[in-house]
Amino acid sequence: MPETDAPEGFRIAATAAGIKKSGLDLGLLYSDRPATTAVVFTKNAFPAAPILVTRAHLKASGNTTRAILVNAGNANAVTGEAGMNAARQCAVELAKHLGCTPAEIFISSTGVIGRPLPVDKIVAAISSLVRTMSSREADTFSRAIMTTDTVPKVATSNAGGVRMLGFAKGSGMIHPNMATMLCYILTDARIEFAALDKALRSAVDLSFHSMTVDGDTSTNDTVAVLANGASGVSPSAEAFTAQLTGVCQTLAKAIARDGEGATKFVELTIEGAPSDAAAREIGRTIARSPLVKTAIYGCDPNWGRLICAVGNSGIPLSGEKVELFIDDVPLIDGDLKLAAEKLKSKEVRIRVALHSGSGKATVWTCDLTEQYIHINADYTT
Amino acid sequence: MPETDAPEGFRIAATAAGIKKSGLDLGLLYSDRPATTAVVFTKNAFPAAPILVTRAHLKASGNTTRAILVNAGNANAVTGEAGMNAARQCAVELAKHLGCTPAEIFISSTGVIGRPLPVDKIVAAISSLVRTMSSREADTFSRAIMTTDTVPKVATSNAGGVRMLGFAKGSGMIHPNMATMLCYILTDARIEFAALDKALRSAVDLSFHSMTVDGDTSTNDTVAVLANGASGVSPSAEAFTAQLTGVCQTLAKAIARDGEGATKFVELTIEGAPSDAAAREIGRTIARSPLVKTAIYGCDPNWGRLICAVGNSGIPLSGEKVELFIDDVPLIDGDLKLAAEKLKSKEVRIRVALHSGSGKATVWTCDLTEQYIHINADYTT
Repeated sequence: MPETDAPEGFRIAATAAGIKKSGLDLGLLYSDRPATTAVVFTKNAFPAAPILVTRAHLKASGNTTRAILVNAGNANAVTGEAGMNAARQCAVELAKHLGCTPAEIFISSTGVIGRPLPVDKIVAAISSLVRTMSSREADTFSRAIMTTDTVPKVATSNAGGVRMLGFAKGSGMIHPNMATMLCYILTDARIEFAALDKALRSAVDLSFHSMTVDGDTSTNDTVAVLANGASGVSPSAEAFTAQLTGVCQTLAKAIARDGEGATKFVELTIEGAPSDAAAREIGRTIARSPLVKTAIYGCDPNWGRLICAVGNSGIPLSGEKVELFIDDVPLIDGDLKLAAEKLKSKEVRIRVALHSGSGKATVWTCDLTEQYIHINADYTT
Repeated sequence: MPETDAPEGFRIAATAAGIKKSGLDLGLLYSDRPATTAVVFTKNAFPAAPILVTRAHLKASGNTTRAILVNAGNANAVTGEAGMNAARQCAVELAKHLGCTPAEIFISSTGVIGRPLPVDKIVAAISSLVRTMSSREADTFSRAIMTTDTVPKVATSNAGGVRMLGFAKGSGMIHPNMATMLCYILTDARIEFAALDKALRSAVDLSFHSMTVDGDTSTNDTVAVLANGASGVSPSAEAFTAQLTGVCQTLAKAIARDGEGATKFVELTIEGAPSDAAAREIGRTIARSPLVKTAIYGCDPNWGRLICAVGNSGIPLSGEKVELFIDDVPLIDGDLKLAAEKLKSKEVRIRVALHSGSGKATVWTCDLTEQYIHINADYTT
């Protein structure tokens, strides 16, 4: 059995519905029984229509889902009442084909904002999606949800009889405090909604909320986990949370690695902060500093910018002393030539020791390059 | 009399002290009598040594200053006790030459972080500075405080017998919530400290705090105003605040216009917000969005990114309706070809109408280009 086979009871499909100019752009994740569903949605003040519709569906269905329908190429955001109707219509059509209620359909969209969703193209493609779904379409699905992504992002896990299969898309607009991208995790664990929801929020804090590409946040961001119980295994909360966190971290790191125009993946470890939350906030402030990110791109061990970013986090520090390292090379009063050499790696590890407590966090980001500008200066036109 | 002659009682000098590899790098602003001094300093948690020393001086002198000594090329930041002593030594030397107390000296530095300040070079240059100071050296002073600036930034004003002469440096690391750059304003108005301080804080909110280049904040940012009373004129609080705001806005806009690598100056007007403060926060969120700034660079009327940035500001909006304009061209359901034409201008005006109240604000920024990356990927090395 290939590693990316769907967990027990799930089936997957993807197709080219013509929403994008070319390529796969419509995907389906299906559970043969009602799946308990927990979600973290965007905190943007203008959530897209599919998010508003899906929120209402989850409320009506008591947080159970039979299928996720997701399209790329059009975000169905800032589309008003017409956008809401478009999302509802997609759910109604898919529910008919699957023999469930519309409230059991989870609708999701990503792409350009402010253009009418081509509902007819989506509706026309649904019967083909339903006909072709199988346990082996993880790869096509992962490609169907890509926009500016350069690689598909899939993660799998198998622990104590519980399987997980996760998908993510995202390479720009990635920012903490938000799951600023799409992510769906399927698991055959048997778990109650409250425990699932708690595990997801914890996992998201230590993964997607610990990662940033450009500090922007989109209208469509979603991290959802569907647990259908088909394995018959009820894992402990600790084991399940650890497994889910692992899958989310794999996907979050894949997104940082695929940051728009990025040439380097950066792992920031913050130690000695007043608390873990303070450490994460300091890490995120460093991770979104354009001056730090351009210095890393230029292999310039400009540690003044790191200090500056620490000082901009708004976190009061009691310690007089701050230490900075690239790999194990100290930066302050250190061998900057050696540090510059270390910065030439595709994988940069920076450690910040604050001597102000025992809080720690790990945050992931990427460098900022001319290519980011190229990609984003000309996206819609 | 040239427009940039110093206000009554002030004299100015600048020289090349050898702190930078070449060019002017040390400047002096002198008042022939004690000048009442108000300052807004960086909110960065690691303020540079000159800021710590100057804060202590202002406390000791009762907010009066006889001279500002400022160097470019070295920030004297993250330099520990040695840096504090270096700043103090410069003040002691200058005070000797001027016949005042060290507490009446305002020390300021800008440049690379974490390198020892070359005190000997500065001390050696002081006698030449004092010997050459005159009312006509505004142009040389404005160039002596430049780092990555491509143009010097000077503003003058004469209203009701009160003259003002302002200098600023800054083109990156510019962010609201901070005067993220150096700015000095000399005025011959007669004004009490409390009124001067209040006027400066109000002026900074409507100028430097309403402007952003890259969202980063430095360890050395300073906006200072020196009022020496030499004109004999005591302006009303309203008149003085308006005059000071005008000077600060001219300088803030000059900084945004000179943003590192910028090709376009952007003025954002936010209307219909719940309050003026909310409008400013929304404007600043838009102004620091890399996705908005790259779209403007690419002349791409991608209004979804503007909506997205409004939604990311954290400001709750009651209005159902948001309108966006470039000049007078509506963006949502508008003529995007015409909007793209308008974006080709070097001066882009964007208006956001929120229909959620009567709050309004104007915020200035610039576009984000490949040149920003070039400049910042290789600054120290």
